Amino acid sequence: MDFDSLVRTSGEWLRGSGPESDIVISSRIRLARNLAQYPFLSRADDVVRSEIEAVIREKVEDLPFPGSTTYINVDGLTPLDRQFLVERQLISREHSESHGSRSVAFGREENLSVMVNEEDHIRMQVIRSGFSLDEAWDDINRIDDLIEAETSYAFSEQLGYLTACPTNVGTGIRASVMLHLPALVLTKEIQKVFQALQKISLAVRGLYGEGSQAMGDFYQISNQVTLGKSEEQIIDNIQEVVPNIIDYERRVRNALIRDNRSSLHDQIARAYGILKNAQTISSEETMHLLSSVRMGINLELIDDLEIATVNELFIHTQPAHLQKIRRAELESGERNAARASYLRQRLGGGIAEQN
Amino acid sequence: MDFDSLVRTSGEWLRGSGPESDIVISSRIRLARNLAQYPFLSRADDVVRSEIEAVIREKVEDLPFPGSTTYINVDGLTPLDRQFLVERQLISREHSESHGSRSVAFGREENLSVMVNEEDHIRMQVIRSGFSLDEAWDDINRIDDLIEAETSYAFSEQLGYLTACPTNVGTGIRASVMLHLPALVLTKEIQKVFQALQKISLAVRGLYGEGSQAMGDFYQISNQVTLGKSEEQIIDNIQEVVPNIIDYERRVRNALIRDNRSSLHDQIARAYGILKNAQTISSEETMHLLSSVRMGINLELIDDLEIATVNELFIHTQPAHLQKIRRAELESGERNAARASYLRQRLGGGIAEQN
Repeated sequence: MDFDSLVRTSGEWLRGSGPESDIVISSRIRLARNLAQYPFLSRADDVVRSEIEAVIREKVEDLPFPGSTTYINVDGLTPLDRQFLVERQLISREHSESHGSRSVAFGREENLSVMVNEEDHIRMQVIRSGFSLDEAWDDINRIDDLIEAETSYAFSEQLGYLTACPTNVGTGIRASVMLHLPALVLTKEIQKVFQALQKISLAVRGLYGEGSQAMGDFYQISNQVTLGKSEEQIIDNIQEVVPNIIDYERRVRNALIRDNRSSLHDQIARAYGILKNAQTISSEETMHLLSSVRMGINLELIDDLEIATVNELFIHTQPAHLQKIRRAELESGERNAARASYLRQRLGGGIAEQN
Repeated sequence: MDFDSLVRTSGEWLRGSGPESDIVISSRIRLARNLAQYPFLSRADDVVRSEIEAVIREKVEDLPFPGSTTYINVDGLTPLDRQFLVERQLISREHSESHGSRSVAFGREENLSVMVNEEDHIRMQVIRSGFSLDEAWDDINRIDDLIEAETSYAFSEQLGYLTACPTNVGTGIRASVMLHLPALVLTKEIQKVFQALQKISLAVRGLYGEGSQAMGDFYQISNQVTLGKSEEQIIDNIQEVVPNIIDYERRVRNALIRDNRSSLHDQIARAYGILKNAQTISSEETMHLLSSVRMGINLELIDDLEIATVNELFIHTQPAHLQKIRRAELESGERNAARASYLRQRLGGGIAEQN
């Protein structure tokens, strides 16, 4: 796998031009599936695991991934390469940290990826730019049908699709949208959103799943229930609530602009200035400042930068991406310097690099 | 008086090219004198005060100020114009806040100014760029002789020059140097300097005299004793100690560069980035950030900015200067926005002004 060429691109879903893309970064749907003739992975030994991987590989390689298909044996990767795929949102953290025969397939645009032998035999996901759950559902449904046409899924008439973890039984679906909510965070209104979502059984996570929340004001909202409802009902549930959150964020942004334009503009401009000039910067601070800059572009307080660039920087300034860009393993302090250097280069900033 | 034209220039002593000007901003000598035939001002009524002013004005207007001579009736100025002259270092805060007939004369280069009816009948001062006390002394000695040739000073064979406040009796001299000591402040070594200076009876003040200390890491070191020593001895006392402080600051700067180059460079670059991008900024933060940037230029970490520009910005971002530049009276919040706008314009920074 040529990771170096991946470093120079980014997923099509980061282009920042989908519906409501000022606030909705991306919409994602993943399905969990298992082959009927094999045991769940928790009960499969290495031989069976490899057999499952080989069987699925054959089906997956034939799938119509847009552009050329990349099929990667994850078990054969270095920890750095695995981390790179996690940052890229092509595999889950669990898939990276697991063991034994496992893989991932994706196309050039990175909108579709299929993990083999993650928690379930098959975890397929579609990511699209902006608020596009319907389109994501159409895409993944088609892929799911193509795989199902050639294989037999573990399925119960009573329960639906059977999965390794009971929380996924039924539809095996997780639908989510990644929202950028800086104004709600700034005004602490975000807590109200959390409470409302909890009441209707929707989960809130950070950019990279649980434990990463509050990073860069990104919140991933997803269903928790997979059983007893159809896929469409589950998706509709999210479809209905997200416009309210979008509206809430927009109203708070407008109120900030109306009542605190000067200090909001100042905060955004300083964030941009620091990103263009810093000589060393942590991942966390970068996310925080890029978040301000992203809002600044949407509020037309910054006019010389594209949303797509900022979206890409959120990914490209992650540790594994930086090391791939620099083609070297870097310690934390070196990464902070490399990150600052990369940001200056991409944002056309400040002081020329010394020494 | 055309203050508007003053706003577009700055004192020749700010040019930042005198000896040791990486650390010594300026050298200043002032002499306190009184006319023998008139009482001290504390015992002069308004009529006598006006008479003193008129007598001295006649002598002072004939002095060879470089360029055209400006003679200003300070009593007739608005508080804003008086504050402007204080920021400019052409008059003292006391002279600004005093009352009754009083004035100031200065030349186009602003190296020489003479205050009439400050605490004493005459307070003359010479300011020069860098570490140039000898030259300042030559200049002011010549001016003093010119005035003395046409008038009779209050003088006692036993005590020397007589002054309104006993602390000035004798020579009536105050010699001072303005030092920029960011590295000693950063490393807290500055306390040792204070203690050493106290032992040899030298005073330490901030940029605008007492109470302004620590603003922008500027420290003004001056003699406290005026009696029992000759002017040359008093000047020599400062001349001897200042090179040690300069050397100390330089050694600490070099140590910082050697041991903490990355974080020092980062701090300086961020300061520059904020100054070029902020939309609102206080005077205090401006001083603090400009101080970092000034050190950055001296350490060759910033190469697209002149020391003279930074020196000038310290003065031009003061409240009265900003109001003169904008030709409007501004509230504190408006000044902070005007200051940020002026800094962006002068430093060629960031986001174009919105609204």
